[in-house]
Amino acid sequence: MRMGIVTGSVWATRKAECLQRQTFLTVDIGEGNIVASDQVGAGVGDRVLVVLGRTAAQYCMEAPVDAAIVAILDKKEGA
Amino acid sequence: MRMGIVTGSVWATRKAECLQRQTFLTVDIGEGNIVASDQVGAGVGDRVLVVLGRTAAQYCMEAPVDAAIVAILDKKEGA
Amino acid sequence: MRMGIVTGSVWATRKAECLQRQTFLTVDIGEGNIVASDQVGAGVGDRVLVVLGRTAAQYCMEAPVDAAIVAILDKKEGA
Amino acid sequence: MRMGIVTGSVWATRKAECLQRQTFLTVDIGEGNIVASDQVGAGVGDRVLVVLGRTAAQYCMEAPVDAAIVAILDKKEGA
Amino acid sequence: MRMGIVTGSVWATRKAECLQRQTFLTVDIGEGNIVASDQVGAGVGDRVLVVLGRTAAQYCMEAPVDAAIVAILDKKEGA
Repeated sequence: MRMGIVTGSVWATRKAECLQRQTFLTVDIGEGNIVASDQVGAGVGDRVLVVLGRTAAQYCMEAPVDAAIVAILDKKEGA
Repeated sequence: MRMGIVTGSVWATRKAECLQRQTFLTVDIGEGNIVASDQVGAGVGDRVLVVLGRTAAQYCMEAPVDAAIVAILDKKEGA
Repeated sequence: MRMGIVTGSVWATRKAECLQRQTFLTVDIGEGNIVASDQVGAGVGDRVLVVLGRTAAQYCMEAPVDAAIVAILDKKEGA
Repeated sequence: MRMGIVTGSVWATRKAECLQRQTFLTVDIGEGNIVASDQVGAGVGDRVLVVLGRTAAQYCMEAPVDAAIVAILDKKEGA
Repeated sequence: MRMGIVTGSVWATRKAECLQRQTFLTVDIGEGNIVASDQVGAGVGDRVLVVLGRTAAQYCMEAPVDAAIVAILDKKEGA
């Protein structure tokens, strides 16, 4: 998974039907912003854990997504 | 998912049979152009959301694609 | 998918049994050469469309490949 | 797989239910830190083998993870 | 797939049970060393073909691996 900071959100009027119930947030994962489906109620500025790829879709009830926020991080020990 | 700008389209006379019904657009996702199957009727200049990987194929009825446009973005708040 | 130029081919005497019927071409996708299974009869110099990842394997009858050439491009409009 | 060094751990009070039993460690795989589910009892400083992608989720009983530590390396011969 | 040169091997006493029968080699694929499961009896210095991702796991009888050596290359024509 990747650690990142929530930087904003995106709106789309025209989108795939199956995306209607998804909330999309932009997350800076260190190599630019990606868009992830929020599964934990994260907000701008939160430090989050993002799962990427096919697993994200399975976690989001097979919605066509490839990134999902699965945790809000409290703290990190070490580097 | 990645945000990108639709930059053009591609034509192929010789292609896999199962790709006949797919419309392919080129999308600049910040690290060069990729080719994505359009699922929402996007056009050149549109700011779109692209899903990558295995999930894209599932969303495109198991066509051999690895990128699909799933939304046209209205606006983006934050960074 | 990625657009690329076919740059050559590879031979392997010792290979996985299930790869016997695959033709492998090297394709420059802008970030160096990858090796892709040819599914459309492409040749050196052709501009092709390459699908990456798990979907490529499914398209190649579950052979252990992660890249497949699925189309030869005629032209490209836009950037 | 990637070789990496365990650099720390992460805590998350708010997280996906199915992540409750996972231990997450940060691993430097040479291109920055990723977060991986520990499956072998690794500790900070250990040199480990990390499997990425969908396979990691399957190995972690379908938890929504995309990286798992599957071995602690003893030594490495060659480059 | 990626072409690479076998550069060494790795040992792990503590590892996932299902990895016991796998032989792991380090392969330089041009962007640093990765660790791949050897399926063809490759040795240090061999030029090999590596399949990445979920397909590698399927090819290795569902072991938790994300890279597998599937061929030893004889020669390469073209670039």
